[in-house]
Amino acid sequence: MATTQGQVITCKAAVAWEANKPLVIEDVQVAPPQAGEVRVKILFAALCHTDAYTWSGKDPEGLFPCILGHEAAGIVESVGEGVTEVQPGDHVIPCYQAECGECKFCKSGKTNLCGKVRAATGVGVMMNDRKSRFSVNGKPIYHFMGTSTFSQYTVVHDVSVAKIDPKAPLEKVCLLGCGVPTGLGAVWNTAKVESGSIVAVFGLGTVGLAVAEGAKAAGASRIIGIDIDSKKFDRAKDFGVTEFVNPTEHDKPIQQVLVDLTDGGVDYSFECIGNVSVMRAALECCHKGWGTSVIVGVAASGQEISTRPFQLVTGRVWKGTAFGGFKSRSQVPWLVDKYLKKEIKVDEYITHNLTLGEINEAFHLLHGGDCLRCVLSMD
Amino acid sequence: MATTQGQVITCKAAVAWEANKPLVIEDVQVAPPQAGEVRVKILFAALCHTDAYTWSGKDPEGLFPCILGHEAAGIVESVGEGVTEVQPGDHVIPCYQAECGECKFCKSGKTNLCGKVRAATGVGVMMNDRKSRFSVNGKPIYHFMGTSTFSQYTVVHDVSVAKIDPKAPLEKVCLLGCGVPTGLGAVWNTAKVESGSIVAVFGLGTVGLAVAEGAKAAGASRIIGIDIDSKKFDRAKDFGVTEFVNPTEHDKPIQQVLVDLTDGGVDYSFECIGNVSVMRAALECCHKGWGTSVIVGVAASGQEISTRPFQLVTGRVWKGTAFGGFKSRSQVPWLVDKYLKKEIKVDEYITHNLTLGEINEAFHLLHGGDCLRCVLSMD
Ligand SMILES: NC(=O)c1ccc[n+]([C@@H]2O[C@H](COP(=O)([O-])OP(=O)(O)OC[C@H]3O[C@@H](n4cnc5c(N)ncnc54)[C@H](O)[C@@H]3O)[C@@H](O)[C@H]2O)c1
Ligand SMILES: NC(=O)c1ccc[n+]([C@@H]2O[C@H](COP(=O)([O-])OP(=O)(O)OC[C@H]3O[C@@H](n4cnc5c(N)ncnc54)[C@H](O)[C@@H]3O)[C@@H](O)[C@H]2O)c1
Ligand SMILES: [Zn+2]
Ligand SMILES: [Zn+2]
Ligand SMILES: [Zn+2]
Ligand SMILES: [Zn+2]
Repeated sequence: MATTQGQVITCKAAVAWEANKPLVIEDVQVAPPQAGEVRVKILFAALCHTDAYTWSGKDPEGLFPCILGHEAAGIVESVGEGVTEVQPGDHVIPCYQAECGECKFCKSGKTNLCGKVRAATGVGVMMNDRKSRFSVNGKPIYHFMGTSTFSQYTVVHDVSVAKIDPKAPLEKVCLLGCGVPTGLGAVWNTAKVESGSIVAVFGLGTVGLAVAEGAKAAGASRIIGIDIDSKKFDRAKDFGVTEFVNPTEHDKPIQQVLVDLTDGGVDYSFECIGNVSVMRAALECCHKGWGTSVIVGVAASGQEISTRPFQLVTGRVWKGTAFGGFKSRSQVPWLVDKYLKKEIKVDEYITHNLTLGEINEAFHLLHGGDCLRCVLSMD
Repeated sequence: MATTQGQVITCKAAVAWEANKPLVIEDVQVAPPQAGEVRVKILFAALCHTDAYTWSGKDPEGLFPCILGHEAAGIVESVGEGVTEVQPGDHVIPCYQAECGECKFCKSGKTNLCGKVRAATGVGVMMNDRKSRFSVNGKPIYHFMGTSTFSQYTVVHDVSVAKIDPKAPLEKVCLLGCGVPTGLGAVWNTAKVESGSIVAVFGLGTVGLAVAEGAKAAGASRIIGIDIDSKKFDRAKDFGVTEFVNPTEHDKPIQQVLVDLTDGGVDYSFECIGNVSVMRAALECCHKGWGTSVIVGVAASGQEISTRPFQLVTGRVWKGTAFGGFKSRSQVPWLVDKYLKKEIKVDEYITHNLTLGEINEAFHLLHGGDCLRCVLSMD
């Protein structure tokens, strides 16, 4: 049992005091976990575009000051009353998508979008007392996505933490908290791509590359990668992309380019950018009669997608995915095992390693074209 | 063998000489069927909104002069070279959606949208010589949807005609050429509604009522009918609708009304009107995580559907359907059999019976609120 159990822990965390202002490494007080809560020592945390989006101030639901971060791995330090599924010392991945097993969503068998703690995590607090466990000199700091992993210690709900094999290297499997599962699951769970399919992937960042990897594993016959940055193409080959199209090199709309390339359209397409006009193109490049397009990218607030209804009446299907449809607590451990068995890549998505103190530089890298995932070591 | 075989037949047909001008009953010359074609004596033909839409001139692909009509039943008069699946005397339903069994679409196992004759039917001619079989005093008259059933005789491709049980009353089963299968199939084939589901049906015309009927047969627990015309509600009960909502009686957007009524949204929704803002509402009233919306209505050319991508990222699915996903030649006979076994309604959709000579009046009725289907007797 950790000697810190039941105590407030003071540790370092990157605090976003205001939108679009550099994060500040602060001494943060982390209160002990209450009933149904788990305090986790975060060892490694990666950056994702959702962190950057909220930080930018464009997310109307963003609350400040807050501690960002949702793709990480660590070790349970202590647990609150009634927590049975993890105990101190367990290796875990915090999950922004909870899984309670009991709510209408979990019991439906149709979705991974658990509703149990959303009312609290959506407004930056914990369920038990609708308050934050973080403070700086007495001033409360909001939680973010129920994870807040840019802190050496964080408190999460017990339904939001996946216990994983302790043999897994935390500096790698932290990526299984968001981007990589999102791409793999978009293919395996949401689209259910079959062997022989023609697949188009729009955007070759981490999520798009994981889509390509998932499509390759599913036996896709052609995996067409689309990106406006041709520098992305070389690396993408290692993830299974078989052909490349740069929309800026074509006069025709990109959907027409793809329809021409594929004798009528692709079987499955994935938008992994967050651009509403690309979402439209991704739908419209699908084959009449059956082509299915999955929206993975997150568009800026208020933006809308459009198309002619005829696109759907003639058999195309428009879907989306959150965390790739994976049930977090039950399936993240399975992904970790697949990684340990070398059935899925993880290391290959890590292009940079920095420390918590260098987090502002890490965000800067994320916006450059070379970075897939930058992993911060938290000590 | 009919004595008319190989001869031009002169018969009555309703010719649309110009958009939006009354149809004119003319003596039309119907040429004999060429290779792969079938000449059918039409006995009964119903009117559908797609006929009215093209007639109105709003369909940019509409060609004039033409003979409209695509929901009908008749008897094969003669067949062209190489036609093996039907012969003179067979009772048939012309199918605007062909089924060749051989094209990429038919072989996919994923769609009913056969591509075999579309290049010809889309431009009002027959495949064999890219010409029309109809003329009035030597002036060619375009075909419509590959069916042109507002004529006492029509010529269709052999892939566009379903042979049915001769015991079926043609004055009833003519409806199985379009609207009723579209609604039933939207539920059974496209949405695959499961027992216990909550279903919303937007628009309670023939198509919407057939959706309700299909949902009832599928075991839906609640079938909510939405129409701006409250007169539709009483009749809809007989087709399985369990609750009614008139959007004009609510201040809140209709999607919100439905979400409130159903503790989070419906499992399946169907737009059976052709209104793009209702299509959006139909998607947005679906339950987060799994709700599926099917577009059945045909919107006016150029109109677009929109929504926030978040609607899809959080698990809703947007689809559409043409002819309810039924494979025409193989499944229309099955629907006829279901009717003969009293497993599906048909008679109940027929609100009016007129003659070919009264077709303009029939179109007038179609636009009034009381008419579901008006069946014309062709003699
Ligand atoms: N649905 C979910 O659960 C979920 C989870 C994680 C991430 N996301 C979202 O997925 C998206 C991708 O994430 P990522 O980390 O891979 O991002 P990324 O920025 O690393 O990759 C995006 C790629 O798209 C390319 N691109 C930009 N505009 C383009 C255009 N018009 N046409 C073609 N390519 C274009 C960029 O060059 C880049 O390579 C983001 O919107 C992110 O918020 C969604
Ligand atoms: N996809 C296909 O294969 C296919 C096949 C046949 C018909 N259709 C289309 O299906 C649609 C319905 O056909 P139908 O014959 O049942 O038409 P209909 O006109 O008989 O029925 C439409 C109903 O919608 C109601 N309505 C109109 N505006 C409304 C609104 N804003 N909110 C709620 N209700 C509203 C009307 O009062 C009417 O009861 C048409 O667009 C038709 O073209 C599609
Ligand atoms: Zn993320
Ligand atoms: Zn749950
Ligand atoms: Zn019709
Ligand atoms: Zn075919």
